[in-house]
Amino acid sequence: MSDNYFIGVDLGGTNIVSALVTAEGKLLIRDRRPTHARKGKEFVLQQIKESIRTIFAESQLPAGKIVAIGIGSPGPLNTRTGVVISPSNLPGWYNVPLKEIIQREFSLPVYLDNDANAAAQGEKWLGAGWQVNDLVCLTLGTGVGGGIILGGKIFRGIDDTGGEIGHMILVPNGRRCNCGNMGCLEAYASATAIVERTYEFLQAGKNSSLQKAIARGGEFSASLIYEHALQGDTLSCQIMEETGRYLGIAIASLVNILNPEMVVICGGVSQAGEMIFRPLREEVKIRALQVPAERVKIVSGILGDNAGVIGAAYVALQGWREER
Amino acid sequence: MSDNYFIGVDLGGTNIVSALVTAEGKLLIRDRRPTHARKGKEFVLQQIKESIRTIFAESQLPAGKIVAIGIGSPGPLNTRTGVVISPSNLPGWYNVPLKEIIQREFSLPVYLDNDANAAAQGEKWLGAGWQVNDLVCLTLGTGVGGGIILGGKIFRGIDDTGGEIGHMILVPNGRRCNCGNMGCLEAYASATAIVERTYEFLQAGKNSSLQKAIARGGEFSASLIYEHALQGDTLSCQIMEETGRYLGIAIASLVNILNPEMVVICGGVSQAGEMIFRPLREEVKIRALQVPAERVKIVSGILGDNAGVIGAAYVALQGWREER
Repeated sequence: MSDNYFIGVDLGGTNIVSALVTAEGKLLIRDRRPTHARKGKEFVLQQIKESIRTIFAESQLPAGKIVAIGIGSPGPLNTRTGVVISPSNLPGWYNVPLKEIIQREFSLPVYLDNDANAAAQGEKWLGAGWQVNDLVCLTLGTGVGGGIILGGKIFRGIDDTGGEIGHMILVPNGRRCNCGNMGCLEAYASATAIVERTYEFLQAGKNSSLQKAIARGGEFSASLIYEHALQGDTLSCQIMEETGRYLGIAIASLVNILNPEMVVICGGVSQAGEMIFRPLREEVKIRALQVPAERVKIVSGILGDNAGVIGAAYVALQGWREER
Repeated sequence: MSDNYFIGVDLGGTNIVSALVTAEGKLLIRDRRPTHARKGKEFVLQQIKESIRTIFAESQLPAGKIVAIGIGSPGPLNTRTGVVISPSNLPGWYNVPLKEIIQREFSLPVYLDNDANAAAQGEKWLGAGWQVNDLVCLTLGTGVGGGIILGGKIFRGIDDTGGEIGHMILVPNGRRCNCGNMGCLEAYASATAIVERTYEFLQAGKNSSLQKAIARGGEFSASLIYEHALQGDTLSCQIMEETGRYLGIAIASLVNILNPEMVVICGGVSQAGEMIFRPLREEVKIRALQVPAERVKIVSGILGDNAGVIGAAYVALQGWREER
């Protein structure tokens, strides 16, 4: 097919991943480096530029072959103006005109989308959803990101803020969420929330093999809890099971509202597999209306931590095509 | 403009309303008669035919001027096959090929949609949403119906079951809902649920002016509770306020997911006005993300109990246009 190349950039609070991708979706080169978000905005912008420069250099392509850059960034942001407003995990970022900055640096069109929308588009383009036009994608990480694809296209709402599935209300006066509200899905099912929920049980004196692991200096993370669940630790198993149920309740609502063909769960937590998916699917089966519940396939993403960068390249491809 | 006329039929558990409507949305003739649902399927089908015949007769239009019939029916149903599957408030209806039956009777194309989608399309066409392309419509009645309009068109999902906002989960292990699930919005905010919630307080010995009214033989309905709230009855006020808050919590989730321009509340309960809208808007303001919360207009429907029949006529108009 075409002979054009696209660069995707997945800007995260921990890592920046860039990649060179063909119009057919072949990932040719990948660069991954720490964000060092705490060093501030200027430092992070340098990291992004450096990462993109590395892709250019390694590509050894003649000038003009790389035609656009797509960036998936933490929100809130404005895809039209290309301004990143104030992401909670990028300290010092307020109204950063990221699109303009990168455009000026590389003299190429730049397209911006939020990270969860980018991941959803990645899984739709080349991942779990490649045969599906109506899907909902949840990315479980520091927060819970959401992306909704309807009729093959990302759904944005009137102000570009649609798809915030992490801020569906799960328990009306439940756990405090980062957004200021109480009881959001994110306050129960993000990796951060999983650790917090576990911590509260440990504080309350609940017995668990996690105590020893943490005392030995192990990092207290969602994946540590998953490991201990695999080894049969009762508290860790309970936490994983409950996480699946929380997700299932929110997804049952989504299934009733959107009647999607597929729900894709991405992000590290989704790698816990059946330990989360079994209770999740059970809740959807019990709670959602029969026809949409029987229809929906609930699956794990298959692009792993490349979903964001591949989706960002797709954002570049789409934006570039639409403007031609 | 055009010289074609459409018949809309709003089939409800209590009343059947039919109307003759022009392509520009003028309502010319209206027929309203009791459904007598308990008399069974054949009786109700006769009522529908009789109502449509009345419209034909009163119209005094030459043959061929009325070009299509649209029916809004309680679901579940299949808009493509035109079969009404098993509505809970139409006893004896199982897989009734309503489209085919009416089509054969009147030799005109017939289009079917569910009642809540019809009401949403009515309010979009000629009501509160006439200037808006992205809106969510909730109809509060025996149940809580939902209709989602995106980009000016009703959103259906992959199997036609989308938009079931009444079955969003509000309280994970809350009140039992008609759908079999627990804690759905419908189990809190339908007219039926409002009466049940009040009844439970009265049973528990809570003092209220409702007791006397019911003892005098007044019908225990949501509108009775509203009247007593207007007169300052503490329990009735509390119930109205809580109903608004329940609606607000569900709408906050919808605002975060769909970022719509407008939310329209239809049905009898919506006539309680500020007593419901004030707490409702407060919850949305507190709970939803700032940008979509500031954007969304939350309003009462303006077509009253004509929303369904006007929407049904619109379903006829749309279906007829698409097939030409």
